Amino acid sequence: MDPKTSKLAQRLAEAGQSHLLQFWTALSPEEQASLTLDLEAMDFKEINGFFKNAMEMSSNSKEKMDARMEPVPREVLGSVTRDRDNLKDWEVKGLHCIGQSKVAVLLLAGGQGTRLGVSYPKGMYDVGLPSHKTLFQIQAERILKLEQLAEQTHTTKCLIPWYIMTSGRTMGMTKEFFSRHNYFGLDKNNVIFFQQGMLPAMDFSGKIILEGKGKLSMAPDGNGGLYRALGNEGIVDDMEKRGIKFIHVYCVDNVLVKVADPAFIGFCVQKGADCGAKVVEKTNPTEAVGVVCKVDGRYQVVEYSEITLPTAEKRSADGRLMFNAGNVANHFFTLPFLKDIVQKHEPELQHHVARKKIPHVDSQGQLIKPDKPNGIKMEKFVFDIFQFAKTFVVYEVLREDEFSPLKNADSQDGKDTPTTAKHALMSLHHRWVLNAGGHFVDENGTHVPAIPRDGAAGSVTDDVNINLKDGTDLPIKCEISPLVSYGGEGLDEMVKGREFRPTLMIDQNGVHELVKNGV
Amino acid sequence: MDPKTSKLAQRLAEAGQSHLLQFWTALSPEEQASLTLDLEAMDFKEINGFFKNAMEMSSNSKEKMDARMEPVPREVLGSVTRDRDNLKDWEVKGLHCIGQSKVAVLLLAGGQGTRLGVSYPKGMYDVGLPSHKTLFQIQAERILKLEQLAEQTHTTKCLIPWYIMTSGRTMGMTKEFFSRHNYFGLDKNNVIFFQQGMLPAMDFSGKIILEGKGKLSMAPDGNGGLYRALGNEGIVDDMEKRGIKFIHVYCVDNVLVKVADPAFIGFCVQKGADCGAKVVEKTNPTEAVGVVCKVDGRYQVVEYSEITLPTAEKRSADGRLMFNAGNVANHFFTLPFLKDIVQKHEPELQHHVARKKIPHVDSQGQLIKPDKPNGIKMEKFVFDIFQFAKTFVVYEVLREDEFSPLKNADSQDGKDTPTTAKHALMSLHHRWVLNAGGHFVDENGTHVPAIPRDGAAGSVTDDVNINLKDGTDLPIKCEISPLVSYGGEGLDEMVKGREFRPTLMIDQNGVHELVKNGV
Repeated sequence: MDPKTSKLAQRLAEAGQSHLLQFWTALSPEEQASLTLDLEAMDFKEINGFFKNAMEMSSNSKEKMDARMEPVPREVLGSVTRDRDNLKDWEVKGLHCIGQSKVAVLLLAGGQGTRLGVSYPKGMYDVGLPSHKTLFQIQAERILKLEQLAEQTHTTKCLIPWYIMTSGRTMGMTKEFFSRHNYFGLDKNNVIFFQQGMLPAMDFSGKIILEGKGKLSMAPDGNGGLYRALGNEGIVDDMEKRGIKFIHVYCVDNVLVKVADPAFIGFCVQKGADCGAKVVEKTNPTEAVGVVCKVDGRYQVVEYSEITLPTAEKRSADGRLMFNAGNVANHFFTLPFLKDIVQKHEPELQHHVARKKIPHVDSQGQLIKPDKPNGIKMEKFVFDIFQFAKTFVVYEVLREDEFSPLKNADSQDGKDTPTTAKHALMSLHHRWVLNAGGHFVDENGTHVPAIPRDGAAGSVTDDVNINLKDGTDLPIKCEISPLVSYGGEGLDEMVKGREFRPTLMIDQNGVHELVKNGV
Repeated sequence: MDPKTSKLAQRLAEAGQSHLLQFWTALSPEEQASLTLDLEAMDFKEINGFFKNAMEMSSNSKEKMDARMEPVPREVLGSVTRDRDNLKDWEVKGLHCIGQSKVAVLLLAGGQGTRLGVSYPKGMYDVGLPSHKTLFQIQAERILKLEQLAEQTHTTKCLIPWYIMTSGRTMGMTKEFFSRHNYFGLDKNNVIFFQQGMLPAMDFSGKIILEGKGKLSMAPDGNGGLYRALGNEGIVDDMEKRGIKFIHVYCVDNVLVKVADPAFIGFCVQKGADCGAKVVEKTNPTEAVGVVCKVDGRYQVVEYSEITLPTAEKRSADGRLMFNAGNVANHFFTLPFLKDIVQKHEPELQHHVARKKIPHVDSQGQLIKPDKPNGIKMEKFVFDIFQFAKTFVVYEVLREDEFSPLKNADSQDGKDTPTTAKHALMSLHHRWVLNAGGHFVDENGTHVPAIPRDGAAGSVTDDVNINLKDGTDLPIKCEISPLVSYGGEGLDEMVKGREFRPTLMIDQNGVHELVKNGV
């Protein structure tokens, strides 16, 4: 061993990680160099500390969680259904902030589409809309449109910087994709990529796992890795330089996401909040969604896996579930709050433990794919910082308008699939057209009812109504480019009193009926 | 033509249906006899009258429906979530009625499983539960169990007669199925089959459609054909003879149906209602479900296809949809009310028009399968009688506990399929076990969270929690025989403090863990 390697071996021995060099002599010089590089970049003391704390936190009994949980009080809640009179004000206020270029959006896009069955970043996924736009493109165009709307109201040029957090695995492809598509019309100087950190996977005794003789098993450090990355990559400084005051954080997988939603931002700003969470109402006690609530008097998201059934089934006097603030990974932060987190509280955030089946090499260097969990990944969560908010607010929106995440590949009885995402978007745009005074007709020229039959049933007379829509594909195929409408506005002129045959497409080139294949 | 045929031809000519004999000379003697039999049984004057009225009603503009609709007032509404303090009383009251043998159930089972892709009655369908019980068996066992529960409380033998309405197409198979299975343990004298009527399909000009040279196109007259059949088949008299006072009517396709639900019956009886409807909350404006409401001051179900989007989206101050009483084809009638309908109001019920693609023969006698609607079927609806109620009440229950209809074959993004029905039942039974103090563990012996991950998502940390349930099939596979528990009661002794590995089966033979294939 050369002196450099000896020194490394010494450091590893002190950290109890000597096994990482067990195949050293079997490695090629290139492999040795690569492993050395990886290991030298690691702070083992820190990693071992993370492991110790995470395992301790994980083993602390959560049995008593139920007794410590309190629902979100009405006074910190804004609701699009219960506070309709305030909606317009909030939207105006939010648009004003955007018009002054005080709002940035921050996209969590570190994940790969593993559960979707693809190896590229989720944002590059095409859910099968008539336009075949990807999630990235849809979101980019919403930002563009919002800038235009804000400029119309405020007559000055405005910008919404878009910070995109990728991971080591997705950075290259993501940047290349944006570049290839000319940033979807956005100014490339306002699309800022940064990278979240990685942590090694460890076995239950705290040994770092080797996935090859000379290769560590590494994984992104969770979407809460955001805060460390914001500091490391100078993002907070960049925001400050640009005069950003408010940040909308969201997750890439939601096809309906209202990027920089003016009403949400306006609500949070008006309430003087430093931190806010957008939620949808959880209506089924066993829906697998985390809920925003208070625990020991501090706000947090309690994961569905931590809740007992009696607590999940608790109801208020009005019959609603008591813990019904379903987390949709849509948050509001002020810059001072975010800065405080990054500079001060980030180290206080504990890693959560995810027990996983982690492929590893055995003592012979053979790759083993375990059939039960053999180790952990350590992750922080983006919502772990709610506890530090001085004024925390919650904003409840309608699921059918704003939330349809893409998580799984299409399958029988599949939830959150490309098909459900596509249907959710087309259903929303169908409603936009109807509410703007347009109508749809089937191939016989007959008006299609506002509520198309979708098999969702509940009616004993389903069979009767099938006929009303003979020849019509369901849901009504309709897509409206974000470049035309951000949230349903501005369509009256184009559709009022008109009749359309699906597929209807409204984009910068106008209103078109797409010809169906093979009909 | 013989005199008999001449007379028939004369009657047909008077009714404008002479075309029905157009292939007469091409028919064999047997076909001629069969057609004659069919035609002689028909009251053409009545049928032509039905057609005229139905078409008129159908062409009356429904545009103004919105303005005429009023929601169900709170005072006629009972809710399992908002009136929890009264639930036990209602249940006791209902069980008391059952114990006195005053309650009958009436099953609407005239439909074939066409949309399910099977040619036999829906009730014979096996949705794929571990036990492979059919819908008929599940419902029969619930009746049996309820009789036992009522007897335990009231110490006298009680009976719940089960009236089963089939159609001409399903009667034979249905009766044979019950007989082959020894009426699933019920006394065959208390299972009473009767048949709904049939009506001919007609083209848009009122001509009866021929589906063969000598064969009329016939279809059941809708689930509202119930009332005519009740009279024709002497069912009301039979009920009276048996001392029945209250009737629970429901549709065969709901795997979760609480047959003769004591709480629903008790609520209706306590309110002095002559007619009641069980509903689930409609939470999405465009869900394809009919809603119970008032129209021109009288109760009815407004079909989703009749509602405009602005009305469907209307909300009360509490944020709930204003028209949210989703019809689930679960009704309560007193016998006097039902008798009044059958004897007096039935003829006042109008047929609804269903435009359909109806296979027919052309002038050459060739079978044509049209690709757009070419005629109508005429149907009455079971809920058309709400308007005649003196005291109408509505009872709101939880969808996840009571409503999962089987309508469609399994498919991608499919709703109301065998898979969704199976999952709904297993999820309910899983909750019963948890609420009775049992736990589930995975293959590693680790407790499975109360809310298993089902991809329903909403959580940004989904990926973290997958691991908690490694090796566990989702939803938790668990089935409890209705013979053991009607609504979750009586399980504590069997499950409290115990740990189970799915598949868990609880039936008359006790508590079993079923061995998985291939593991």
